[in-house]
Amino acid sequence: MRSMTANVQNDLPIGVFDSGVGGLTVLDAIRQALPHEHLVYLGDTARLPYGTKSPASIERYATQAAAKLGEQGIKLLVVACNTASAVALNALREQMAPVPVIGVVEPGATAAVAANTGGKHLVLATEATVRLGAYRKAVEALDPAAEVREEACEMLVALAEEGWSDGEIATAIVRRYLDEANGFAPDTIILGCTHFPLLRDTIAEVAGAGVTLVDSASTTAAVVRATLEANGVLRSGSTSGSLRLLATDGATRFARVGGRFLGHSLTYQDVELVDL
Amino acid sequence: MRSMTANVQNDLPIGVFDSGVGGLTVLDAIRQALPHEHLVYLGDTARLPYGTKSPASIERYATQAAAKLGEQGIKLLVVACNTASAVALNALREQMAPVPVIGVVEPGATAAVAANTGGKHLVLATEATVRLGAYRKAVEALDPAAEVREEACEMLVALAEEGWSDGEIATAIVRRYLDEANGFAPDTIILGCTHFPLLRDTIAEVAGAGVTLVDSASTTAAVVRATLEANGVLRSGSTSGSLRLLATDGATRFARVGGRFLGHSLTYQDVELVDL
Repeated sequence: MRSMTANVQNDLPIGVFDSGVGGLTVLDAIRQALPHEHLVYLGDTARLPYGTKSPASIERYATQAAAKLGEQGIKLLVVACNTASAVALNALREQMAPVPVIGVVEPGATAAVAANTGGKHLVLATEATVRLGAYRKAVEALDPAAEVREEACEMLVALAEEGWSDGEIATAIVRRYLDEANGFAPDTIILGCTHFPLLRDTIAEVAGAGVTLVDSASTTAAVVRATLEANGVLRSGSTSGSLRLLATDGATRFARVGGRFLGHSLTYQDVELVDL
Repeated sequence: MRSMTANVQNDLPIGVFDSGVGGLTVLDAIRQALPHEHLVYLGDTARLPYGTKSPASIERYATQAAAKLGEQGIKLLVVACNTASAVALNALREQMAPVPVIGVVEPGATAAVAANTGGKHLVLATEATVRLGAYRKAVEALDPAAEVREEACEMLVALAEEGWSDGEIATAIVRRYLDEANGFAPDTIILGCTHFPLLRDTIAEVAGAGVTLVDSASTTAAVVRATLEANGVLRSGSTSGSLRLLATDGATRFARVGGRFLGHSLTYQDVELVDL
């Protein structure tokens, strides 16, 4: 990288990686915060979901995906998947150096602590993220007075993928998971999986007034901006950035489900298939 | 195979392959029907689920899994996954010849036609199985007078994996899928995914009296027996057969979820991890 002029490097895309389409919620926040940046997104749809797999497999899949984005030439990598961030962030930083790597767990924890310092935080996440205690560790590092409880919520992933984000069934499933944290009475609910912002309204309704919902998307976008600024590689000018979408399988399904996450419709022609 | 004596070949195991733990419902039926047979089961848990992936990926994963079982030395292969049976059966037969390969779609269709010849059959299956019309073709080949409707039901897979097989949420989700086939009024419901026998009671209750539920497990076991007999390789004698369980990822989760499908508890020590 040092051999490039600053200008060339500024024009390199930001790489964003997820196990599937959930990370598009993070991509969307980055796009809104940094409209001049070029973005390339890779969803590892051939091997999703990561949340129920072993740490060894998750790390292997994540490093392969990061290598593929590295080949494209990127100036920063966002791991827009809570599970991969929880399991593989150190391995990815070692692999990608000197390209900076930003995960979504620390930004999510930062948002929670900003919302309720000294508060009680309930983390809804995948089985792998919960098993590693990733959010608990990140919140407690920022705020030793915080109390954290983590709940594995695999059915919420399926709900978001199926597009059943509200109504009787979504409400009953969210209620069941919140009931399992019975008696904890959180101030904050951390949406610790990039699928869950799609269920935000339902989770807010079941949680009731007085509970703040936070996710990693906007805080991650702020960390991306700060890192690009610090490294002097923010892209300036008035032209909009471009967006490339890569997936490892199922362009048609990626477009159909991904459109829900990105907030506008996609077709399979918007998605390039790649092998890892 | 021709170079082996009949006795040696009789003692080879039957290979049973699924994308994960769902095929254990088929394994269990085979074990009950053929208690003297040795069995080796491979669950491709590193890449599950298959039902939302593309045909090209499903075929690649299935042929890799079959090759791994072939290496162990098997006398017959059961593809205990409806999605892999729907997508890759011909490819697997070509690959494994002269070892016979039995899928679960045709046995399921046979069970449905036996239950209601000339009837109306509603197939609950994965997205990939429905997209290929696998059950419709198999039923119509056996009974041209039959009417078939197929519904993709991804949330039922998640329900079975989470262990929420009955109660308010399971009932509401099953009702929603049956409502989507509104007006079809089936005589038979075909459980066209090996996860769905776990939800049999809930599906039966929502469907109401007068609807017959069929799955592939017992019919597949009968086809396995008939094929072994026809090839003269049925294992006789009074000693019980053995069972080996292989998985490509997550022995702990395999044991926890798999125990529900097999009907008795497992520990991670019962599961051997293999690479594909």
